Amino acid sequence: MARIVMKFGGTSVADVDRIRNVARFVRREVESGHSVVVVVSAMAGQTNKLVEFCKNVGSPSPALDMQNIEYDAVVSSGEQVTSALLALTLQNLGFRARSWQGWQIPLKTNNAHGKARILEIPETNIGPAIDGGEVAIVAGFQGIEKNSRITTLGRGGSDTTAVALAAAIGAERCDIYTDVDGVYTTDPRIAKNARRIPRISYEEMLEMASVGAKVLQTRSVELAMAYSVRLRVLSSFEEPGFADESGTGTVICGEDEIVEQEIVSAITPSRDEAKISLIAVPNEPGRAASIFIYLADANINVDMIVQSPSRSPDSANISFTMHVNDIETAADLLNKRKGEIGFSDITLDKEIAKVSVIGVGMKSHTGVASVMFKTLADRGINIQNISTSEIKISVLIDSEYTELAVRALHQAYGLDQLGG
Amino acid sequence: MARIVMKFGGTSVADVDRIRNVARFVRREVESGHSVVVVVSAMAGQTNKLVEFCKNVGSPSPALDMQNIEYDAVVSSGEQVTSALLALTLQNLGFRARSWQGWQIPLKTNNAHGKARILEIPETNIGPAIDGGEVAIVAGFQGIEKNSRITTLGRGGSDTTAVALAAAIGAERCDIYTDVDGVYTTDPRIAKNARRIPRISYEEMLEMASVGAKVLQTRSVELAMAYSVRLRVLSSFEEPGFADESGTGTVICGEDEIVEQEIVSAITPSRDEAKISLIAVPNEPGRAASIFIYLADANINVDMIVQSPSRSPDSANISFTMHVNDIETAADLLNKRKGEIGFSDITLDKEIAKVSVIGVGMKSHTGVASVMFKTLADRGINIQNISTSEIKISVLIDSEYTELAVRALHQAYGLDQLGG
Repeated sequence: MARIVMKFGGTSVADVDRIRNVARFVRREVESGHSVVVVVSAMAGQTNKLVEFCKNVGSPSPALDMQNIEYDAVVSSGEQVTSALLALTLQNLGFRARSWQGWQIPLKTNNAHGKARILEIPETNIGPAIDGGEVAIVAGFQGIEKNSRITTLGRGGSDTTAVALAAAIGAERCDIYTDVDGVYTTDPRIAKNARRIPRISYEEMLEMASVGAKVLQTRSVELAMAYSVRLRVLSSFEEPGFADESGTGTVICGEDEIVEQEIVSAITPSRDEAKISLIAVPNEPGRAASIFIYLADANINVDMIVQSPSRSPDSANISFTMHVNDIETAADLLNKRKGEIGFSDITLDKEIAKVSVIGVGMKSHTGVASVMFKTLADRGINIQNISTSEIKISVLIDSEYTELAVRALHQAYGLDQLGG
Repeated sequence: MARIVMKFGGTSVADVDRIRNVARFVRREVESGHSVVVVVSAMAGQTNKLVEFCKNVGSPSPALDMQNIEYDAVVSSGEQVTSALLALTLQNLGFRARSWQGWQIPLKTNNAHGKARILEIPETNIGPAIDGGEVAIVAGFQGIEKNSRITTLGRGGSDTTAVALAAAIGAERCDIYTDVDGVYTTDPRIAKNARRIPRISYEEMLEMASVGAKVLQTRSVELAMAYSVRLRVLSSFEEPGFADESGTGTVICGEDEIVEQEIVSAITPSRDEAKISLIAVPNEPGRAASIFIYLADANINVDMIVQSPSRSPDSANISFTMHVNDIETAADLLNKRKGEIGFSDITLDKEIAKVSVIGVGMKSHTGVASVMFKTLADRGINIQNISTSEIKISVLIDSEYTELAVRALHQAYGLDQLGG
């Protein structure tokens, strides 16, 4: 019997009815003769509610609380509930099933509470348990550190749990059930003719996740790539078995498995960006560096950085982007260090968006960037900043132009036509 | 530094504000130089909500679900949340504090899920931890069995957790904080002149708990008596320290510590009773016994039993009481066995109440029962059934007469006068 891992996110287990629906999907795999591990998130909204509790009793700095051991004990309770409820549901349907908490597996992590990393692909008795016909329902997002305290893997960590377990038990595949039926060439809410991508490479998926596509967490794709775990993105809002019959869903696999590679696979917009500009930072060694050291120490990831001349020849203006959730914390931190860094003024801009063009075909084809720049220029869209990788070009634009840019690029690269 | 245990129930940790209030009580004890263990329940209402989830996904028989391993994993999450939130709150006040889940202590129980019993007073590293100045916040109500699965101790089990830990660490006392400021001579909502009892013996408290007084769980009082843990019932709705200054609260201690013993200490009403009557059960050996065997197998505790003649000389009517929550399950079960047991009809009565008179003085004084019967007879209250112990007399009456009976008895035994 082949072992498989199925992962269901928060909207798929949002209430008792949705949990019963998940049980139907699990049932189908069990009845097809698979040995099944199911990884579940907390009910949609529950993690936010628990985080809110922590903020309300905790320190004035929410960022610090998220690294507190007790935060993890609070927040991990959400997955404990859904894992046990799904086990109960399956038992009631006549299946053998049991819940596994992170500490019961045990899924060992480091002690970076709130954003722990899995230390090793766990040796676990889950594999033998499922081969005996019992469905294993695993509480996602959580682990245990060496002092036997609960850890959490950071938001979206249940994807990572699923992939790590799939690697650990040598699963044939890891199916990620979510509220969309696959990975799309762009956001279908923006471009109506967005198409589902039947197969995409780990590398492209990784770029998409890292520039803001929310369908999979970046770390889970990294892990899948490292351990060659075959991923599939599916909808839990269709009928069980829809993917097998109609061939829907998106498979994420090695590049070599994709016969006809597109040059550009997807256009990924992200509105979760925000920009800080520091005016007139003195042109002295170490000043600019200190800014990014302070932000890194506060666990704030800075994305695109631009340094431009200021009015005075002795200073420069420095702009950088980050996740919009971090901007207030970052601005507070920089204002506290204003004297030390020496800037004259600080401005915050949340009205920006990042639009990325992604495709492994860029490695072997030229002219991808020029199509992008021409397409945007033709629509009068100003590019504030650019960053690139081997298979990705991202531009920062005024957020008002997001939809226009996405639709124009989707068309320019021929993504709106079947077969691209 | 003397070690103490403080326990806070669901209404005392009902929301973030109440948890902050609890932190004030804990702070006071820490600043008085005590080494402190705090045991917390789930937020008021949360356990019911979690039980409801289990019922909605589970089997058609809720009684069976409550013995399911997964039920325990779901329900124990409530205490996990409050324990960690209180630890966070205390940390934010500058104290060292950590949460302890049942499996982390570990509080070892048997595997009777949903109503597990503590196997041993746990050897734990909590004692040394609190002597080092760290406040231990323990998730009540939960433990772990030999297969490392979570167990729960049954409703109200947090009292039991608190007393077991107090015994384990040799605590000077175990303070049970609740929404009333002590144990009363009767329910103050019924009799306005009910008085707080400054000291009461374990034995009397045990009878009060077992006949339906809700201030403490029966098992916790048994355990306190067995290990001579000094209990105190206090309100978390007063200002911290009120008990020390005004001498309020109720101490539960050995009989020998109570100098002037009252003959009758309390009148305890319970409306949680329901009665089933089986009509015309054949007078054959084993018929009546089988009824109670079936009910015991379904974990339904039967209280007062009466057998009375029926119209036919070959059969009898059998009535018995139980907790009102069990009556539907019991009736279903008996109806399924109707042919086997052989009764002709079944009637259910929820309009009954049990009123109990409790006092260790009954051991040495006579006439307590006759005062009770005369008092009720004078008010025209019919006694349907009677049960007694060495220090208790309980009668079953029509529930309409509950308040009348309680007030009359409270007065008849002189409990409404200071000093009794």
